[in-house]
Amino acid sequence: MLTFIGLGLCDEYDVSVRGLEAIRKADAVFLEVYTSVLTGTTIPRLEEYYGKKITPLYREDVELHPEPVLDAAAAGDAVFLTAGDSMVATTHADIRIRAAERGIPTRIIHGASITTAVCGLSGLQNYRFGKSVSVPFPYGKWFPMTPIEVIAANLAQNLHTLVFLDIQKDKERYMTIAEAVDLLEEQALRAGTSIPLYIGIARAGSADPVVHAGNAEEMRRFAFGEPLHIMIVPGELHDIEREYLVRFAGLC
Amino acid sequence: MLTFIGLGLCDEYDVSVRGLEAIRKADAVFLEVYTSVLTGTTIPRLEEYYGKKITPLYREDVELHPEPVLDAAAAGDAVFLTAGDSMVATTHADIRIRAAERGIPTRIIHGASITTAVCGLSGLQNYRFGKSVSVPFPYGKWFPMTPIEVIAANLAQNLHTLVFLDIQKDKERYMTIAEAVDLLEEQALRAGTSIPLYIGIARAGSADPVVHAGNAEEMRRFAFGEPLHIMIVPGELHDIEREYLVRFAGLC
Repeated sequence: MLTFIGLGLCDEYDVSVRGLEAIRKADAVFLEVYTSVLTGTTIPRLEEYYGKKITPLYREDVELHPEPVLDAAAAGDAVFLTAGDSMVATTHADIRIRAAERGIPTRIIHGASITTAVCGLSGLQNYRFGKSVSVPFPYGKWFPMTPIEVIAANLAQNLHTLVFLDIQKDKERYMTIAEAVDLLEEQALRAGTSIPLYIGIARAGSADPVVHAGNAEEMRRFAFGEPLHIMIVPGELHDIEREYLVRFAGLC
Repeated sequence: MLTFIGLGLCDEYDVSVRGLEAIRKADAVFLEVYTSVLTGTTIPRLEEYYGKKITPLYREDVELHPEPVLDAAAAGDAVFLTAGDSMVATTHADIRIRAAERGIPTRIIHGASITTAVCGLSGLQNYRFGKSVSVPFPYGKWFPMTPIEVIAANLAQNLHTLVFLDIQKDKERYMTIAEAVDLLEEQALRAGTSIPLYIGIARAGSADPVVHAGNAEEMRRFAFGEPLHIMIVPGELHDIEREYLVRFAGLC
């Protein structure tokens, strides 16, 4: 059996009770470490809490050489852990298909995801979000314009946009809200448009999440602190959304 | 302190370890019972597992007479439970604002939400979803066309649409996939458009979730079983999305 388990947002206590039980009963425990990340804990702390040895999986372990994972799942109960909810940051569809091809049963135990956590933290209504987008670190002459295009299309329909910020796990480099604002403002300038309001969220799911709303200048000035950071570019705010942001995100 | 806690998708074991600990330490436990629902359990089972008496909250308790909740939160640790992730099905923004106005500290402990669970269950990529929509039960001459309008707008941008099906908690009436397909097909007819493919998902998060893809006729024919049901109308499928649906959702 191969069980995909979402660990939730922050640390070892964000897994569901059902997920924790499955991990503690497992014969083999794998943790995907190349896309999503639990910033509030470490692998040794997870191992201690689960009472299990954890095998970290890098991109090539999942995409090119998944045989050890599949062999473990064929021989016993293997669990495949990711931060957030399973198959959201990266689908891992391929390894589930490969398992099924080998006749290995699979299932998913879901966890909390940043995709919905932002609704409670910002007070923005879930059904008003359009397509989400990621802001990648630029390199060389590559300067993608996709983020501003998605944001502009959503704004034209009066929809909110969830903006994921790039994570380079191998370099332990996490894009900050200030960096993302710089990139989006440059994109907006080139596209001949503008972004009137941002909402920045840091450390969702931790004991000290920070939510702050304002224009580009305000976002650059504000100290959001440690990663992970994420942003929302909202459409026109409903009254209750505005009141919530005034109350909980310093909106003026 | 007022803590909003998302209980996840199905039963008492889907809450996070952090959430469970907060409930067990709480002085007062409230459960929102008028929008979202945990179909895999009952209030007595939740009470037994938590070791706490649960006070159910109906719409008027939250929207008109929230004083008992706020008084409990002012006097000690009160927890406000909802199925899924907090503030997604309904925002409950108002009660958090009222608490803050009274100087009561608030926080959120997140849970798994159907909004992201559908990604793992269907293999559809999270970033390809546009705005979501709800299909309400029609009554009298009221026959809303919003669902097909949102779906058509998303399809025009080659985006997937998550389609929430109506829940009438007071009547214990949960819209089925077959009912929703009938309504959407009628809407599509009136709008002069069509929906080529549906994906139906039943009992997400339970031990026996069912995922099935097909056209309207196939959806009506297929036995999805007990609630809750939800649907996706996908945009054009990427190769890996198609392969996943063939493997795990009977797509032909």
